[in-house]
Amino acid sequence: MIFLDALRCQNQQRPPVWLMRQAGRYMPEYRALRAKHSLWELFHQPELAAEVTLLPMQLLNVDAAILFSDILVIAEALGLSVHFPDTGGPFIEPAVQTAADVDKLQLRDISHSLDYVQKTIALVKPAIDVPLIGFCGGPFTIASYMMDKQQVKKWIYSDPASFHRLLDKITVATIAYLRLQIQAGVDAIQIFDSWANVLTHPQFLTFSAAYLKKIVDALRDTNIPIILFCRGSSQRPVELSAIQPAAISFDWQQKLPVLRRSVPSHIAVQGNLDPELLFAPQAIISQTVKHLLKEMQGDPGFIVNLGHGVLPETPIDNVRCLVDTVRSHTE
Amino acid sequence: MIFLDALRCQNQQRPPVWLMRQAGRYMPEYRALRAKHSLWELFHQPELAAEVTLLPMQLLNVDAAILFSDILVIAEALGLSVHFPDTGGPFIEPAVQTAADVDKLQLRDISHSLDYVQKTIALVKPAIDVPLIGFCGGPFTIASYMMDKQQVKKWIYSDPASFHRLLDKITVATIAYLRLQIQAGVDAIQIFDSWANVLTHPQFLTFSAAYLKKIVDALRDTNIPIILFCRGSSQRPVELSAIQPAAISFDWQQKLPVLRRSVPSHIAVQGNLDPELLFAPQAIISQTVKHLLKEMQGDPGFIVNLGHGVLPETPIDNVRCLVDTVRSHTE
Repeated sequence: MIFLDALRCQNQQRPPVWLMRQAGRYMPEYRALRAKHSLWELFHQPELAAEVTLLPMQLLNVDAAILFSDILVIAEALGLSVHFPDTGGPFIEPAVQTAADVDKLQLRDISHSLDYVQKTIALVKPAIDVPLIGFCGGPFTIASYMMDKQQVKKWIYSDPASFHRLLDKITVATIAYLRLQIQAGVDAIQIFDSWANVLTHPQFLTFSAAYLKKIVDALRDTNIPIILFCRGSSQRPVELSAIQPAAISFDWQQKLPVLRRSVPSHIAVQGNLDPELLFAPQAIISQTVKHLLKEMQGDPGFIVNLGHGVLPETPIDNVRCLVDTVRSHTE
Repeated sequence: MIFLDALRCQNQQRPPVWLMRQAGRYMPEYRALRAKHSLWELFHQPELAAEVTLLPMQLLNVDAAILFSDILVIAEALGLSVHFPDTGGPFIEPAVQTAADVDKLQLRDISHSLDYVQKTIALVKPAIDVPLIGFCGGPFTIASYMMDKQQVKKWIYSDPASFHRLLDKITVATIAYLRLQIQAGVDAIQIFDSWANVLTHPQFLTFSAAYLKKIVDALRDTNIPIILFCRGSSQRPVELSAIQPAAISFDWQQKLPVLRRSVPSHIAVQGNLDPELLFAPQAIISQTVKHLLKEMQGDPGFIVNLGHGVLPETPIDNVRCLVDTVRSHTE
């Protein structure tokens, strides 16, 4: 299990590789499923979610599976309506607009409202021989989705107390949700605080990192490794390391060996290829991947990934080229 | 002239303040002009461009004026058609699609094709008692606008040589354009390489910084101070300093005193308030501005600005609050 070894900074073999959005629209097999089923069905019907989760195992031979789901399902557990339109991303409506709306949010029984996630995990686990990654959104990112995007900073600046109450509620729900995923059998967790890059440095510490730390601390007893991801992560290696996750997933704006110097050796680093590299000729893809492998040679806590998700228009053969280049690498 | 003093890191008074997009849709006076004239007219008719340039002097009392124009006008001097629709941003059509398209681009006589910019500067200069900032786009950003945004990285990865030829042509045109602005009377220049944040670190050095350096070096004999701006600047203080501009304009993702430590004392720093701070209650705006002023107290090379442009929905009284807080500050 080189993926789990790398998460514990104890990998002595080639680095493991998996990709954010490794199951998605770039795959003909996924598009065929989407032609028959709505996005809501793919997320909420365990058999379908499991089928999508397994696609990259069959088509790419990656070293980890990641649960096919959406970070917004947690909002359903807080009583909000999440919409999954066939085009464009999921959204929440009606939005959270006032402090009173925040105070009305109540955590429903997760094991009931999110039982389909448990069922998906139960279906996936016996079908794979690699670790399964569970995931959730960072509280700041989930809170941002709950309101008009234009309102986020206004709210933070004008009524930080009720914004913190919202983050607290999301954090409590998230911890319960991740415990449910862990009980159902996931081997690792990735937290996507995708939108944290809009924050100033002090805001990042207060409204993003503090809540990521609450989640990481609350789940330390489970011994399940947690990977932190946010846009702008390459600007925050020290602040993210202070949360003491198992690993940090970095974007492509800084060289990984440079970032590595700011991350303690007991924390793994994941990343950080440019997603648009996958539009390059395959000779360039394999050359760039080999260069990264060489730069990180001998690091027992290194996981190959992109700096963000696979883009929908990506040619699948180029994704295979990336994965195959890593898999054929000899340490 | 505290703005020019600060650009030379010799300001002994309160820091100067101006704002990116200080003339724009957030001003009722600007919206009134836009109701009568197209965006094309505002950019291309010297009397109108001058009138817009002067609005922030009259309404805000800022310490520098910035020419009202668009970074894409340079593309017109290279024979391309720039469109200025009434809603949405300007764009270039037909786009540059092939290496042959690049090789066809020819620099026309700037003093003819961009004479209206000269005329605008000639109208503005006698009407202001603060310095006038001229500007242009960074070659990488201009090149990105010339093609389908999705093609930029594909092109860089698959045919870097012709992408460099495109950057070379834009750079030559830009140097000529900035010389024209300087001859017409601007007192400083800001280069906006807004989109450089999409690049990996090696790409940033090769496709953005190298061309910014060519421009800065070419204009060193003019003694006109040049300010560099890009998104993601707070991630690149060392690389931007290596270009040896007069100043670097930083985004709001890192604290300015922290960035200051990575910038040599002979290079000024500009920034770096969150543009969305201007949606906060005025007590918070003035408190946050005062905090920045205190953190940067005594720095002779500090210019107050936002980390990006003023947003269209910003209440003008909040912009005034920012400016007035700086102006009433006693060093």
